[in-house]
Amino acid sequence: MKKIIDAVDDVVVDALRGMSLAHPDTLHVDLEHRIVLRARPKDDGKVAIISGGGSGHEPLHGGFVGHGMLDAACAGEVFTSPVPDQIAAAITRVDRGAGVLQIVKNYTGDVMNFEMAAELAEAESGTQVTSVLTQDDVAVEDSTYTAGRRGVGGTILVEKIAGAAAEEGRDLAAVTALAQRVSDGSRSLGVALTSATVPANGKPSFELGEDEVEIGVGIHGEPGRRREKIAPAKELARTMLEPILAELPGEGPALLLVNGLGGTPLLELYILLADAQEILAEHGIEVSRHLVGNWITSLDMAGASLTLLRLDEELTRLWDAPVHTPALRKGR
Amino acid sequence: MKKIIDAVDDVVVDALRGMSLAHPDTLHVDLEHRIVLRARPKDDGKVAIISGGGSGHEPLHGGFVGHGMLDAACAGEVFTSPVPDQIAAAITRVDRGAGVLQIVKNYTGDVMNFEMAAELAEAESGTQVTSVLTQDDVAVEDSTYTAGRRGVGGTILVEKIAGAAAEEGRDLAAVTALAQRVSDGSRSLGVALTSATVPANGKPSFELGEDEVEIGVGIHGEPGRRREKIAPAKELARTMLEPILAELPGEGPALLLVNGLGGTPLLELYILLADAQEILAEHGIEVSRHLVGNWITSLDMAGASLTLLRLDEELTRLWDAPVHTPALRKGR
Repeated sequence: MKKIIDAVDDVVVDALRGMSLAHPDTLHVDLEHRIVLRARPKDDGKVAIISGGGSGHEPLHGGFVGHGMLDAACAGEVFTSPVPDQIAAAITRVDRGAGVLQIVKNYTGDVMNFEMAAELAEAESGTQVTSVLTQDDVAVEDSTYTAGRRGVGGTILVEKIAGAAAEEGRDLAAVTALAQRVSDGSRSLGVALTSATVPANGKPSFELGEDEVEIGVGIHGEPGRRREKIAPAKELARTMLEPILAELPGEGPALLLVNGLGGTPLLELYILLADAQEILAEHGIEVSRHLVGNWITSLDMAGASLTLLRLDEELTRLWDAPVHTPALRKGR
Repeated sequence: MKKIIDAVDDVVVDALRGMSLAHPDTLHVDLEHRIVLRARPKDDGKVAIISGGGSGHEPLHGGFVGHGMLDAACAGEVFTSPVPDQIAAAITRVDRGAGVLQIVKNYTGDVMNFEMAAELAEAESGTQVTSVLTQDDVAVEDSTYTAGRRGVGGTILVEKIAGAAAEEGRDLAAVTALAQRVSDGSRSLGVALTSATVPANGKPSFELGEDEVEIGVGIHGEPGRRREKIAPAKELARTMLEPILAELPGEGPALLLVNGLGGTPLLELYILLADAQEILAEHGIEVSRHLVGNWITSLDMAGASLTLLRLDEELTRLWDAPVHTPALRKGR
């Protein structure tokens, strides 16, 4: 294993330290609890939004803390849920009296720990906590880490749109309902060209042949639907979009997220985007908004995922609203 | 070779098409000339700034086109300079009558082609063109593609700071002098953990052992100073910073750019940043500004580079000035 790390056991806290140094104007990092917070939270009475999960998916979630998106993110060990005490501490820290929404990717450990944290926080401080699960991955039901569908790229859309709604001053019930609507409307699928290597394991999580891709891979390297020979990008895009479109709810224009899994260069992501948009046009779907880059990654895994969400006028406006985080930034 | 591409010969134009679709509000892409332009250039009489070079280093340069940075970027084939006609077309397109500054990475082909383009444009339309070379890589003098030192991460600092100065309305001589000052003050070094694979070649450009890193690698995989066994990130940071610090001009606080070469996850870049900053503190150097991420890449190469530039008050202000490009965005 070749990685730019120091002690294998310290990768998360070492990275959080770097994150803290890199973004002093945006982030405050509580290294003890491994919570990423806004540097200068306003006491504006808004609903607070937290998220979190295993590390190794950067910039998710810490990179999405800031105005217009998250109030806090809890970093677990690599590919391991944060613990309830840590999440409860985050809830208490961000609550402004208007309640806290938790956005949780649907993995068994995360679901359990965020649930326990909500109960802890409610019991200790009376904070009102709601949760929305993201489960946008159409690849498989029930996988290595999941009962039901996995939460992947759709998580970013939920965090952005719910974040904008909270910033507008909507109440907890309204922000939660909106987050649920975005979660319900998002569909994703990923393909891996290589495995990730978890630092503590020291070797790739799975092996792929020289000419193979894993269709429907999870962000922890969970097995997908099948293995295929590598194909041109346009065929890959079609293979990814078909199951997404088969289950995509709603009508009208869509947001297309082209997400790199960590080891794939931007050049390839742009090629995939052009191909995906051409296929969507064949299906009569207009892509009205795009996001391309490495947003929810799997360490050094080469590969990409596509996510679609139909946008109405309200979702478009909230997607376009200003956001000011290390990873995603628009307007002011 | 496994890549998300269609025809090997079309990767650049296919990626430009995706780029154009992804950023309609910011970019206009002339696919025929392979020039990335601002979507809505203002006729404000400001000095125009162009750059460009071989593709495969995305987001450099096209991702840095927009308010506060470049007016145009010319995309060559992968790791190959754009051609003079193409660059001359870009010069003509962006000139607002105040002249054009070219920011050119010091590679033999680029230097020659930008020089010829400047002569062409001056002869055809009388446009006044100046050029600044970036040559911040302290690894080696004269390499596969270079006479003298290679231009790497410092290029981004020159583009950002000169871009801000042009936006302020400074004249061509002043913007050029400032760009030269930033170029003169920047020092970089990179390490590779793996080779990149150029699509047209179909195999890695060089081989590294399971436990080897190339110290001083170039962004096209040019050989560095030596090969070493992989070491903890802090030792790698020290190995990179020592030659940089030995030649870093000026005094006072510094900007630290931690740059991923394409295949290295953000988690590792943050760890490297924390280590680098600790070493700089030992040397009494305060890091007053940071930039971390994949900015000047080498396709899928795993590895990272560090760049330092001392900042005075003027450079700090220009670094902090609003920028509105696909890759880099601050303020408004």
